[in-house]
Amino acid sequence: MSETLARKLLAAHLVSGQLTPGTEIGLRMEQVLLQDVLGTLVMLELEAMGVTRVSTSPSVQYIDHGLVQSDEINADAHLFLKSACERFGVIYSGPGNGISHPVHMERFGVPGVSLIGSDSHTVAAGSLGMLAIGAGGVEVALAMAGEPFYITAPHVFGVELVGELPDWVSAKDVVLEMLRRHGTSGATNTIIEYYGPGLACLSAMDRHVIANMGAELGATTSVFPSDDAIRRFLEARGRGADFRPFSADPGCSYDRHDRIDLSALEPLIAKPQSPGNVVPVSSVAGEPIYQAYIGSSANPGYRDFAVVADIVSGSRAAEGVSLDINPSSRQVLQTLVSERKLGSLVASGARLHQAGCNGCIGMGQAPASGRNSIRTVPRNFPGRSGTREDSVFLASPETCAASALSGVITDPRTLDRPYPRIAEPDAMPMNAAGFVFPQAGRRPELYRTRHTPLLPDFDAYPDRIEVPVLLALEHDVSTDDIIPAGQILPLWSNVFATADHAFGQVDETYASRTRQADTARSGHAIVAGKNYGQGSSRENAALVPRIMGLRLVVAQSFARIHWQNLSSFGILPLVFVDTPSSLAIGDTIVVEDIRAQLEAGASVRAQVRRKDGTFEPLHLRHDLSERQVDIMTCGGVINWIARRRDNSMERTSA
Amino acid sequence: MSETLARKLLAAHLVSGQLTPGTEIGLRMEQVLLQDVLGTLVMLELEAMGVTRVSTSPSVQYIDHGLVQSDEINADAHLFLKSACERFGVIYSGPGNGISHPVHMERFGVPGVSLIGSDSHTVAAGSLGMLAIGAGGVEVALAMAGEPFYITAPHVFGVELVGELPDWVSAKDVVLEMLRRHGTSGATNTIIEYYGPGLACLSAMDRHVIANMGAELGATTSVFPSDDAIRRFLEARGRGADFRPFSADPGCSYDRHDRIDLSALEPLIAKPQSPGNVVPVSSVAGEPIYQAYIGSSANPGYRDFAVVADIVSGSRAAEGVSLDINPSSRQVLQTLVSERKLGSLVASGARLHQAGCNGCIGMGQAPASGRNSIRTVPRNFPGRSGTREDSVFLASPETCAASALSGVITDPRTLDRPYPRIAEPDAMPMNAAGFVFPQAGRRPELYRTRHTPLLPDFDAYPDRIEVPVLLALEHDVSTDDIIPAGQILPLWSNVFATADHAFGQVDETYASRTRQADTARSGHAIVAGKNYGQGSSRENAALVPRIMGLRLVVAQSFARIHWQNLSSFGILPLVFVDTPSSLAIGDTIVVEDIRAQLEAGASVRAQVRRKDGTFEPLHLRHDLSERQVDIMTCGGVINWIARRRDNSMERTSA
Repeated sequence: MSETLARKLLAAHLVSGQLTPGTEIGLRMEQVLLQDVLGTLVMLELEAMGVTRVSTSPSVQYIDHGLVQSDEINADAHLFLKSACERFGVIYSGPGNGISHPVHMERFGVPGVSLIGSDSHTVAAGSLGMLAIGAGGVEVALAMAGEPFYITAPHVFGVELVGELPDWVSAKDVVLEMLRRHGTSGATNTIIEYYGPGLACLSAMDRHVIANMGAELGATTSVFPSDDAIRRFLEARGRGADFRPFSADPGCSYDRHDRIDLSALEPLIAKPQSPGNVVPVSSVAGEPIYQAYIGSSANPGYRDFAVVADIVSGSRAAEGVSLDINPSSRQVLQTLVSERKLGSLVASGARLHQAGCNGCIGMGQAPASGRNSIRTVPRNFPGRSGTREDSVFLASPETCAASALSGVITDPRTLDRPYPRIAEPDAMPMNAAGFVFPQAGRRPELYRTRHTPLLPDFDAYPDRIEVPVLLALEHDVSTDDIIPAGQILPLWSNVFATADHAFGQVDETYASRTRQADTARSGHAIVAGKNYGQGSSRENAALVPRIMGLRLVVAQSFARIHWQNLSSFGILPLVFVDTPSSLAIGDTIVVEDIRAQLEAGASVRAQVRRKDGTFEPLHLRHDLSERQVDIMTCGGVINWIARRRDNSMERTSA
Repeated sequence: MSETLARKLLAAHLVSGQLTPGTEIGLRMEQVLLQDVLGTLVMLELEAMGVTRVSTSPSVQYIDHGLVQSDEINADAHLFLKSACERFGVIYSGPGNGISHPVHMERFGVPGVSLIGSDSHTVAAGSLGMLAIGAGGVEVALAMAGEPFYITAPHVFGVELVGELPDWVSAKDVVLEMLRRHGTSGATNTIIEYYGPGLACLSAMDRHVIANMGAELGATTSVFPSDDAIRRFLEARGRGADFRPFSADPGCSYDRHDRIDLSALEPLIAKPQSPGNVVPVSSVAGEPIYQAYIGSSANPGYRDFAVVADIVSGSRAAEGVSLDINPSSRQVLQTLVSERKLGSLVASGARLHQAGCNGCIGMGQAPASGRNSIRTVPRNFPGRSGTREDSVFLASPETCAASALSGVITDPRTLDRPYPRIAEPDAMPMNAAGFVFPQAGRRPELYRTRHTPLLPDFDAYPDRIEVPVLLALEHDVSTDDIIPAGQILPLWSNVFATADHAFGQVDETYASRTRQADTARSGHAIVAGKNYGQGSSRENAALVPRIMGLRLVVAQSFARIHWQNLSSFGILPLVFVDTPSSLAIGDTIVVEDIRAQLEAGASVRAQVRRKDGTFEPLHLRHDLSERQVDIMTCGGVINWIARRRDNSMERTSA
């Protein structure tokens, strides 16, 4: 039978379950990618689980987020991570090497291989024909410990690309077109599989752009075939031997299908404050901008910077516009130097920043209050830029460069100049500076800092809860809303210090109300609208509210990774069955016989006690697998693994 | 009579007083340099003084400190400053252009002209034969309003340079040798005048290095003759027309004299935690380092980066060493690109940061706790790096580069390679990107932000004070100890928000104790050892404690700029006459008939009431001029100017 590439990749890594969409499957994950601000927790989890040496290979810890060292916290965290890498057998990629996603793709990505990462944009490696999935840190820790990775078997969404991109339209516009058509939850529980003759005009790094922002579509991942473009990509990096071709079988059929005529695309832009808010650039042209920002894993390729350099060459950024250049990696920076592109950028008035994630996640370059920032980054959730009242637009490098020159949002097709087509050099520099490879036999102690405290103990889930609603939230609450980045990022390794900032952007009183009501002991609930927990994979968005007493989230729907993180940390995620409830702060939710109800089926009966003391029934649903119910009820995955280890030790000694 | 260059420059700008060391003189200041984190207060002061258009020209506002935009505060402050520049007629140099001192020297510096700046390293322009002095912001605001700048007429300290620098020894070692010989208060109330045949081997930018760290010697400023090196410097920048020769008369005599044989120098290093803690590099060689940091106004020239590039070319920074490159300006970055030096740095594993002051003042790149950082910056006061338990060494670019390669502090002479002699290109790029020049007739409103509050009103000095000692401090307390930089920097424009952090590194309880005792109303005192208020010129080190109630500082001696700032904000600076007192927290100082005593002469009689209720006499001294007494007693310079304006308006209307 003709098979899709996505299903072939899944089948090749399947260790439990069947590829029936909606059911749980277990996958063998071969490679691991960690970034620093979430990697610290993963290392602490490996320690809590008693892991001595990781099973995945390569496992790579990238230092790419916490690069603004305004005090000692980030630098100390880097030392902690370096020691943890040596202890557990993980490759350490130091600060200055660049963003995990493009660096991993360039150095370690292998077509057909599986990759799990503690970062939602791990999916970018689907550009190489990898099975690359982002997950909460504790899921990654489990994979590193040799456990399967469990997800809901996804649908496969075939997207045929035909035609050729016109001048001034590039890969970013393709994925913005996907977001325009399908929205931010348009590909939940879905692998997007791109194919067709249109691929011929998309390089490996162009495909990275598209696969990367699959995260913004809610996709489990995206996959591209491993074809000649991938062969060229690997050969240019001296890694031709890693090439293997993969593609869908001719005539395969998809669960869902769409088709994009690349030649019909125009420059697109996502308006504040959602990546799904996509319109043609021409419809917002003329809006004044404060900043044009180039960088991030969403446009990380050499060409994404070189095209900007060529567009601004000989010109100057408009007065008052901050043109911020953020090289995605040491390689990209080196190539911009050797290909003589960097000079144009600097001469145009650009600010050149260190290689890394930087302002994409509020680490520097936060725009002025209420001023427009146009960026090549993947996300524009409120406040993610670091500025509370921000106004961020997402667009291609071409659109950002054109806007930088004019000082207003500008359709790059209106520039009076030829479109610069960038050729990637045949041989890209591959520089091992800043990498530390683990050595067999070395097992140093972890370098402790005051912000890497031991994780707390987690109690088992009670069989009855009676928990007050402390927050009642709208649709599309992102993990940036739950745990902010920006200045809080250095504290992420310290769950106790992070707690003060949980939901701070949504409701400043949340943390103090949890303390007032002592909900760390007695528990509390949150209710929300659709797509709760969208965005980044940060597990502290579950872990931190958990230590503050969160035991129940009832939403109209959940984003995949956050939903998984909730149950992994002993928080029950339930879904409204009937019309959305009018639950509000002050109401109390009561659920009885929890374990029995969860094991009996999807339906969950509960009650709400209103402020006036009256009770109403609540019809809810859970989507947890048996395994997840087991994990959730024993208090989360760390308890679960510890119990299994104890059991296996008992068996051994028996 | 044969005259020194220093006295010629002073005489050319003298508007009041006599050039008798120790007496007060008034100087006409022609040019002004502002940096951002202190410039905001200057602009608020111009507003409070009712200034419409500044009298100095050019006056230039540089955005070089607050470049890490982790939230909106810095970006908002840039908009405020840009609006203030347009309103008051000041040139705006935007973020990305680089550090004020080298940029001002390259673009606006003119031999023989006077320059005042709200930054202690303004003195670096003495390298060009300018009379360049750092001052508290309010002094700068006065100069911008057309007022003279008053200082104590300095001694002139002639330093004859002979011989030629050996390989691997450079300008930084010359000024470190000065610090080794004379210490951090070795040139108080002194202009250091360099001359002699040794100058022939020092370029204009080499002299900048030496003049810059004159601030660390406590000097009023340093001067170099304007000779052929200066002519070449200006011509390479298309500014040959600005050249005018200036030098001392042959046979002039100096108040003090020293002589340095350059050929006898070796690589030197200042150990933690004072720039005066200088020893030969060889005596600390082998100490492991965490970081090698290149940049800042202390080594800002193209050659200071290029020599590092050549040293590391083809090699790699040692494992785990953070080699941080901080270009001092857009010009330097452009030249590193065009001269093909940047590639070597990036390939060696360096982290390339944006152009600006950056980690020199704790804005990023803070080292890990307790780990050694070797830096080309001018200062290593405790905590200035941003790390509370820091350990910073100061050395030349050569020594830092050699140490980066080996991972331990290394005498660069021990490197087995030829010394790279860097030739500056004949034509340096001069790029006006990022500059905004004021336009006549435009006078926009100030762009208000929540962190640019109006300055508070200041009450006149009472005639009797009875104030508790809230802090009893050691020698060499720096303005970094009083008002920290690092993460607090974005708040500097907001004196009320800064107050929470005053003296936080020295005594965490100070701010809360001022609130507890309501000293904002009732006043309090601080006692200190020698050289109180050394380091940066930040006027908020006086202004902020003032609004918290500080009315009296009694010290064994004061650093010049801070001493001036104290009286300018209505705080009485007094000096112990007898043996240093045993004053302690809990004692109360009583001073009666204050105005009469200050006007009658230097001696000030006071009493201390000990905790046990007993009284002891205190013999104190003041060094204030009549003018300063007047300013201090009317509550500070803003009141004083307002009173003068009122008087002149009365006279006009009479």
